Amino acid sequence: MAFFDVASGGALHPVARQALLASLDEGWGDPGRLYREGRRARLLLDAAREAAAEVVGCRADEVVFTSSGTRAVHDGVAGALAGRRRVGRHLIVSAVEHSSVLHSADAFEAQGGAVTRVGVSRAGAVDPSAYADALRTDTALACLQSANHEVGTVQPVAEVAGACRAAGVPLLVDAAQSLGWGPVPEGWSLLTASAHKWGGPTGVGLLVVRKGVRFAAQGPGEERESGRVSGFGNIPAIVASVAALRAVRAEADAEAVRLRALTERIRARVPQSVPDVEVVGDPERRLPGIVTFSCLYVDGEVLLTELDRAGFSVSSGSSCTSGTLTPSHVLKAMGVLSEGNVRVSLPPGVASEEVDRFLEVLPGVVAGVRSQLGAPEPQVRQRAAELVVDSLGKRCPIPVIELAKVFPEVPVGGTVRVLSDDEAARLDIPAWCEMRGQEYVGEEEAERGRAYIVRRVS
Amino acid sequence: MAFFDVASGGALHPVARQALLASLDEGWGDPGRLYREGRRARLLLDAAREAAAEVVGCRADEVVFTSSGTRAVHDGVAGALAGRRRVGRHLIVSAVEHSSVLHSADAFEAQGGAVTRVGVSRAGAVDPSAYADALRTDTALACLQSANHEVGTVQPVAEVAGACRAAGVPLLVDAAQSLGWGPVPEGWSLLTASAHKWGGPTGVGLLVVRKGVRFAAQGPGEERESGRVSGFGNIPAIVASVAALRAVRAEADAEAVRLRALTERIRARVPQSVPDVEVVGDPERRLPGIVTFSCLYVDGEVLLTELDRAGFSVSSGSSCTSGTLTPSHVLKAMGVLSEGNVRVSLPPGVASEEVDRFLEVLPGVVAGVRSQLGAPEPQVRQRAAELVVDSLGKRCPIPVIELAKVFPEVPVGGTVRVLSDDEAARLDIPAWCEMRGQEYVGEEEAERGRAYIVRRVS
Repeated sequence: MAFFDVASGGALHPVARQALLASLDEGWGDPGRLYREGRRARLLLDAAREAAAEVVGCRADEVVFTSSGTRAVHDGVAGALAGRRRVGRHLIVSAVEHSSVLHSADAFEAQGGAVTRVGVSRAGAVDPSAYADALRTDTALACLQSANHEVGTVQPVAEVAGACRAAGVPLLVDAAQSLGWGPVPEGWSLLTASAHKWGGPTGVGLLVVRKGVRFAAQGPGEERESGRVSGFGNIPAIVASVAALRAVRAEADAEAVRLRALTERIRARVPQSVPDVEVVGDPERRLPGIVTFSCLYVDGEVLLTELDRAGFSVSSGSSCTSGTLTPSHVLKAMGVLSEGNVRVSLPPGVASEEVDRFLEVLPGVVAGVRSQLGAPEPQVRQRAAELVVDSLGKRCPIPVIELAKVFPEVPVGGTVRVLSDDEAARLDIPAWCEMRGQEYVGEEEAERGRAYIVRRVS
Repeated sequence: MAFFDVASGGALHPVARQALLASLDEGWGDPGRLYREGRRARLLLDAAREAAAEVVGCRADEVVFTSSGTRAVHDGVAGALAGRRRVGRHLIVSAVEHSSVLHSADAFEAQGGAVTRVGVSRAGAVDPSAYADALRTDTALACLQSANHEVGTVQPVAEVAGACRAAGVPLLVDAAQSLGWGPVPEGWSLLTASAHKWGGPTGVGLLVVRKGVRFAAQGPGEERESGRVSGFGNIPAIVASVAALRAVRAEADAEAVRLRALTERIRARVPQSVPDVEVVGDPERRLPGIVTFSCLYVDGEVLLTELDRAGFSVSSGSSCTSGTLTPSHVLKAMGVLSEGNVRVSLPPGVASEEVDRFLEVLPGVVAGVRSQLGAPEPQVRQRAAELVVDSLGKRCPIPVIELAKVFPEVPVGGTVRVLSDDEAARLDIPAWCEMRGQEYVGEEEAERGRAYIVRRVS
């Protein structure tokens, strides 16, 4: 069994496990109490906070432990927005943030705030000058991830931080995917992270608010963690999280080189061994362990299930629940193919043999899914310079499969109209054109669903 | 060393420790993922939910795990209030709820909601008919703890639930202190609890929302735990919490008898061996393991420190942070003495010898604190039927000490005016009168601070 989904959250680092066990007996007391058990817990908590601050590169009293990375983001965004309420009610996020940031933005919008969602390149990166253009005099907060959780693209945090600083706007950096690899470039005002991404236990997040940043914690009042989180912290888990962070950081440089070579191998080999694949994300400015690709004519959920059967745990899109595999908002924002999407995120220490075995197995699995899908004969109504493919009522990836099947029958210069009522077609038909070097003419309303028009240029 | 503060949170139950270790390897995966590690985590989570539901006496899909008991209360109150926004914006709480409930009420009030705080008897219990009188046609939610965390008094939940049901108002029961001892009486709509009160790890709370209760989760949207909590749950800690709950419940009946005898011993002996002590809380309708008393002429923080030196971890008032030992809102609402307050909360399994040792040590420790305090000579301005004691600028318990010192000098029928600018005097001077059988005449504004007038009747 190979676990290739550490970007969702990985197993406990051995050092974390050790620290957890060691602190179960010392760290259960209420750190707010005056007696022995409280003092011992407080000592552990204070030491963990010092150590976390050192790794993050901030002061200990700027660090707050939360009950998850998501909670850190929710509390951080809400507190920063409330702290600068007088400045204005405008929030900037990138279009490819983690759902916790986007949900926070949605909640802010529902309360009457204005949100600008800055788009990204086809590689998944924001353009610093486009981001800077979004800054307004009433901007209360800007958010940018350090690196994307789905495709691994590293964001230009330093440049964006510079623009924010010039405008006097605090920048919240969601460093969930990168903090184990190294510090966030200078210039941020708030930072969030999640311990189980770097080998800590679940249930621990990090929220750092730099001194001088206006912050007004929301929700019912609380005396703990500078009034910024509620409830009694899980100190053994906090201790374990910080121990894991130090341990992975100590190995980060060497491990980054090794994992980068392995993901580079996947980036290079997959397009050679699997037909009709698009590897997505920036090939250079990326995290060491993440590589993402999409396979034409493949149902992502079926592919994941088959890979699981073959012994590989990978994930797809940014979906958080098993029931809903909606097209990933990240891939959508990048304008790349979303169907048959696979994210491989390698945990530190992964054996290179496992990656090789994955590369061996993948082509057969994809071919199996494609044939299993049994793409039906397309229903062609007319044979001429314009063909109409009726894919109404059919779910992605069927419309693209049918488009591809009839395409050779249309002469160069001719067009295919694909009728579809599947939302994913809007994303995947243009992506297919991009991959195939064909012209995507556009979409228009049809009697039922939409018509997507493609012109054959070669 | 004896730990007598389990009401704040106790050590991990051995069964919880075992369950935690066993599930560290199985429970780290994201339960929302389709692959093996996700499925294993989901199985553990589902099993824990089933088991928790069985202990609580509800359906599994009514149980949500939160990151703390405080979070369960915050989310439960906010969700229930929002769910019944159309009914009205009135909330009822008892005056002796846990701070998490009172903070939620404050937050609701700050947003324009109306809050009724129902008072309690001198024993700390609400009067069901007074509670029922507070119900209005626009009442969105009523909250009542199952038992008080500071004095152990059990609340009349069944009667209040009946009144709420008759009025069609949902009742949220904060069962943090009692869930380990037994189920909450029928009739509640929402229930909250905190695992580290019953031997589970910190970082796990329970929120139960019965089917049919209108509930609208607040905060940024989230797909997890029926949309009711945010972030990736700490499954090993959840598993450990439920294992501990089952374990303590299995031993609860026998252990309750044993602890009740021990706390009864403390209730009986302390007033015999320590002069000027008031044991507070209901002598009958109370939790098995909690006993609380207040010592006249004693600084609570100093007493706690001295007891800690003597090897006993106890707590005082409802203070959550070491810095602020403000008079407990619970003792204030009960109208009992708050100075020199000590709460003993015995963990299940405590050795009776430790309790006996505590009873041996306590009189000497209290006497030591009293003499250490070195109550200064009171400054008497006038010797007559009215004496004035100038305690301005002096902190509790000095004003009461000075009152007690001059009291014999005033003739029966005469009065003492105590000048004080310490807020605690307002509570403790009437409490002293009650204990001494003297008449508390009242308070009035003085040139500086307030004057508290006491008439000698015997």
